[in-house]
Amino acid sequence: MSFHGSTARLSEARRVAIFGGTHGNEMSGVALVNLWIKNSDDIQRRGVDIKPFIANPKAVEKCVRYVETDLNRAFTPENLSASGGDEFPYEVRRAQEINRMFGPKGSPEAYDVIFDLHNTTSNMGCTLILESSKDHFNLQMMNYIKKAISPASCLVLLNEHPLLKYSTCRSVAKHAVGLEVGPQPQGVLRSNIFEAMRVILKHALDFIELFNEGMEFPPCTVEVFRVNERIDYPRDANRNIIAMVHPNLQDCDWEPLNPGDPMFQTFDGKTIPYQGSCTVYPTFINEAAYYEKQQAFVTTRRETLAASSIRKA
Amino acid sequence: MSFHGSTARLSEARRVAIFGGTHGNEMSGVALVNLWIKNSDDIQRRGVDIKPFIANPKAVEKCVRYVETDLNRAFTPENLSASGGDEFPYEVRRAQEINRMFGPKGSPEAYDVIFDLHNTTSNMGCTLILESSKDHFNLQMMNYIKKAISPASCLVLLNEHPLLKYSTCRSVAKHAVGLEVGPQPQGVLRSNIFEAMRVILKHALDFIELFNEGMEFPPCTVEVFRVNERIDYPRDANRNIIAMVHPNLQDCDWEPLNPGDPMFQTFDGKTIPYQGSCTVYPTFINEAAYYEKQQAFVTTRRETLAASSIRKA
Ligand SMILES: [Zn+2]
Ligand SMILES: [Zn+2]
Repeated sequence: MSFHGSTARLSEARRVAIFGGTHGNEMSGVALVNLWIKNSDDIQRRGVDIKPFIANPKAVEKCVRYVETDLNRAFTPENLSASGGDEFPYEVRRAQEINRMFGPKGSPEAYDVIFDLHNTTSNMGCTLILESSKDHFNLQMMNYIKKAISPASCLVLLNEHPLLKYSTCRSVAKHAVGLEVGPQPQGVLRSNIFEAMRVILKHALDFIELFNEGMEFPPCTVEVFRVNERIDYPRDANRNIIAMVHPNLQDCDWEPLNPGDPMFQTFDGKTIPYQGSCTVYPTFINEAAYYEKQQAFVTTRRETLAASSIRKA
Repeated sequence: MSFHGSTARLSEARRVAIFGGTHGNEMSGVALVNLWIKNSDDIQRRGVDIKPFIANPKAVEKCVRYVETDLNRAFTPENLSASGGDEFPYEVRRAQEINRMFGPKGSPEAYDVIFDLHNTTSNMGCTLILESSKDHFNLQMMNYIKKAISPASCLVLLNEHPLLKYSTCRSVAKHAVGLEVGPQPQGVLRSNIFEAMRVILKHALDFIELFNEGMEFPPCTVEVFRVNERIDYPRDANRNIIAMVHPNLQDCDWEPLNPGDPMFQTFDGKTIPYQGSCTVYPTFINEAAYYEKQQAFVTTRRETLAASSIRKA
C-alpha cells in the first residue's frame, strides 16, 4: 500500500477464493459453493480468478461442524509451521493443505481475498466479519455492499480482540472476509438465507471487479460492531448450565443491552439481569455451536471507522 | 376396556414415564427431564408414579441425534425379541433395556403412559403425536390439553399410516404420546420452546390425575392431522438434492397446500409446484433430521375423530 495524496494505492485483487463448508453443517455455503463448482456463471468477473472451494469436505460429508477439531480455529502459527502428518487431527492437516493452496498465510504469494461462508442459529441477519480495522480495501468493500443491498441491511462485526480473535481459515488471505447469515439451524438449508448470501457475494465480487478496473473509491465511514466480551451461560458447581437466554434477549442480536436488562432465565423461572456498566450490543445469541465454547453470546461496542480513498496501484 | 352404557371404562394410569433425549440434540426435553430428575415438584400428581427418564444418554452426552442408529425407530418386534448383546448397535441394546424397564411392549406389565419429548427445526408449534385413532384415553387427553391451553393452540398429528408409522420408544407403553415442539435448532435451548413444552406436560399430567380420581370425561371430538405421504427433495441422477423448500412453503406447517402451489425452488431459481390432486396440510417442513430420511416434509389430511365418554374402571 502506498499513498498518492490521500488515496491509498493498493494491489489488484486477482486471486479470490470462496470457501463453503468450513463448518460442514452450515448448509448455505455448502450449497452455494457446490453450485458454483458445477456452474461458475454467477461468480465470473473480468480479470479475476475466483475459486469456489469446500474447505472441510469430511465434515460436509458427515454433516457435522468438524470431524476432530474446529477447522476455523486451526490456522495458528504452530499448526501451520508444524511438520509431520498422520499424528495431527484431520482439520490440522487440512489447515496445512489449505495454507499451501491459498497461502502461505502472511506471504506475498497468498490469495488476495478469501470469502468464508457461514451460517448461525442466531438471529444475526447478514453479517460480514472483519479481522482488522486498518484494512481499507475491506472497509471500502463493506461500504460498497451496504450501499448496494440497501434498503436491506447487513452489519459488520469486527473481531480484532486480542484474546477473542481466533485463527480462521480466511486469515490465510491478504484480505479476510467472513460472511455469517442466520438464523438457520445446523443441517438445514433455507431458501431465504441461501438467497441473502448469494446477493451479498454478488456485490462483493462486483466491488472487486470495479476496483481492478481502476475505479477510485472516495473516503467513507463504516459502522462496525467491535467484539468486546464473551458471556457464558450461568452454571452450577458441576459446570452444568442452569439458565437459558432470556426471552427478552433471544433473537435480539444487535439490539442494545443495558445494565439491568434481563439476560438469562433460570430453569426454575428466575431472571438474571445484565450487570455490565454500559450499553452493549449482543450478537451470536444462542448459537448452537458455541455451547461447547462456553459462550451464550458475545457483546460488542458500536464504532465508526474511517476508510481512506482507495485505488488500484 | 369395557363399556357401561356408552362410557368406556378404562384402567387407571398409575405408571407414567416422561422421556427426554430420545434424540440427544433436542434440548427442551433433555433440559426438562434433567430438571425433573433433580426436583420433581412440578410433575408430582396424587396417585401416579411419574418417572422422568433420559432415553439416549450417550447421544445426549455427544449432543447428536443418535450414536449408531435412530433410537426412535428401533422398537421393532425383531429388535425387541432378539437375544444377544454387543454385536447390536448401541441404540438397539438401549431399546431392549427400555423395553425391559417400561414394557414389555404390548404386555399388561407395560407402563400406562409414556410421554416422549422432541424438538423440531420445523415451524410446527406445539404438536402432540398419536399412533392410534382408537385410543379413547389419548383422544380425551388431547381434548383436555387443547381446551386447557386455549387460546394458545396445539395440534394433533396422527401417525397411523401402514408404511410411514415407525417403531417409537413410547410405543412400549399402553398409551403413547409424542410431544414435538418447534421451531428450535438442534443443540439449542430456547426459553419459549422450553416453556411451551412444560405447560403442555403440566396439563397432560393434570388430566391423568383427574382421570385416576374418577372424573368422567364426556364424549368429544378431536381434530387430527393424519399422516398421508412423505415428500422427498427433488434430486439429480446422482441423488444430490437440487432444490430447497420454496419460500412460500417454508415455515407454513399446517397451512393448506393446494395443487399448483409452489413447493420447491431449485438452486437456479425455478419453482416446482405441488402436483397432488387435492389439498393437503404439510408438516415437518424442512426438519434437519429428515434430510437423511429423504423427506422434505410430510403431507397430512385433516380429520375429526370421535372419542367416547371415558371413566376409570
Ligand atoms: Zn461457521
Ligand atoms: Zn426427535
